[in-house]
Amino acid sequence: MNEEPIQHRYPEDFCHCYGCGKLNEEGLGIKSHWDGRESVARFTPAAYHIALPGYVYGGLLASLVDCHGVGTAAAIAADEAEEAGGEGTDLPRYVTASLHVYYLRPTPLGPELVLKGRLKEKRKNKMVVEVQVFAGEEIKVKGEVVAAPMPRTMR
Amino acid sequence: MNEEPIQHRYPEDFCHCYGCGKLNEEGLGIKSHWDGRESVARFTPAAYHIALPGYVYGGLLASLVDCHGVGTAAAIAADEAEEAGGEGTDLPRYVTASLHVYYLRPTPLGPELVLKGRLKEKRKNKMVVEVQVFAGEEIKVKGEVVAAPMPRTMR
Repeated sequence: MNEEPIQHRYPEDFCHCYGCGKLNEEGLGIKSHWDGRESVARFTPAAYHIALPGYVYGGLLASLVDCHGVGTAAAIAADEAEEAGGEGTDLPRYVTASLHVYYLRPTPLGPELVLKGRLKEKRKNKMVVEVQVFAGEEIKVKGEVVAAPMPRTMR
Repeated sequence: MNEEPIQHRYPEDFCHCYGCGKLNEEGLGIKSHWDGRESVARFTPAAYHIALPGYVYGGLLASLVDCHGVGTAAAIAADEAEEAGGEGTDLPRYVTASLHVYYLRPTPLGPELVLKGRLKEKRKNKMVVEVQVFAGEEIKVKGEVVAAPMPRTMR
């Protein structure tokens, strides 16, 4: 497992994301780690990140799934570039083409949430990353992120 | 068009949502209005709500779609209850069963975003609400919210 979060290895210009950018002072600071097979992120929601008293806000959960999924795609792309003989410098930046979040059960506020991500499928230049969100032993949310390389127009 | 936002008509106990709860002081304060056929919400992201400099964060867009979609379902359910002869008091509270967000184009930071919502489909006790997010004249994001009546366990 690489100690440095995936999102901290993005080029500096792309480290301003509200969800995961190390240069966004107001942001959530989501940090994902990749071991070559699975990605893991840990996040404890704030007291105000609620949908109803006692339960985590679905939009926050969607944000966690989003940044963790896109980060996982970037880590996979970096591994592939390295295997192809590229230099291991900054990670490629992916963006979200679509995001799908299934709220299986209410997510309790309090415990640290653990996100796990894996590559589910490749579609031409896109990657479909499957994300699970755990509170304790139980999966509360399932997500799917369709990630695409950042379009040139956004650079 | 009802002047009072849908989300302000939820029972007080359910007004703490980070996205749209009038009692959440740290929250986004998303407000939706329903005219009996279509729902509309207006929201201007903060300077720090970015994915990359100049572009709105996808997790915020997912949050907007979520609260607007769930609010739309609640307004539709209230209309139906009224037609069925019920008293027009607090709105029923819906929760998100699943959320689907399609980022068609990058959403520029700056302009006020306009969300429009409509009922797409009914599935037993669930409603599928279609949401479009506009910046200016152009649709930037399409969303679909599968909303379900709040389970008793969350009350």
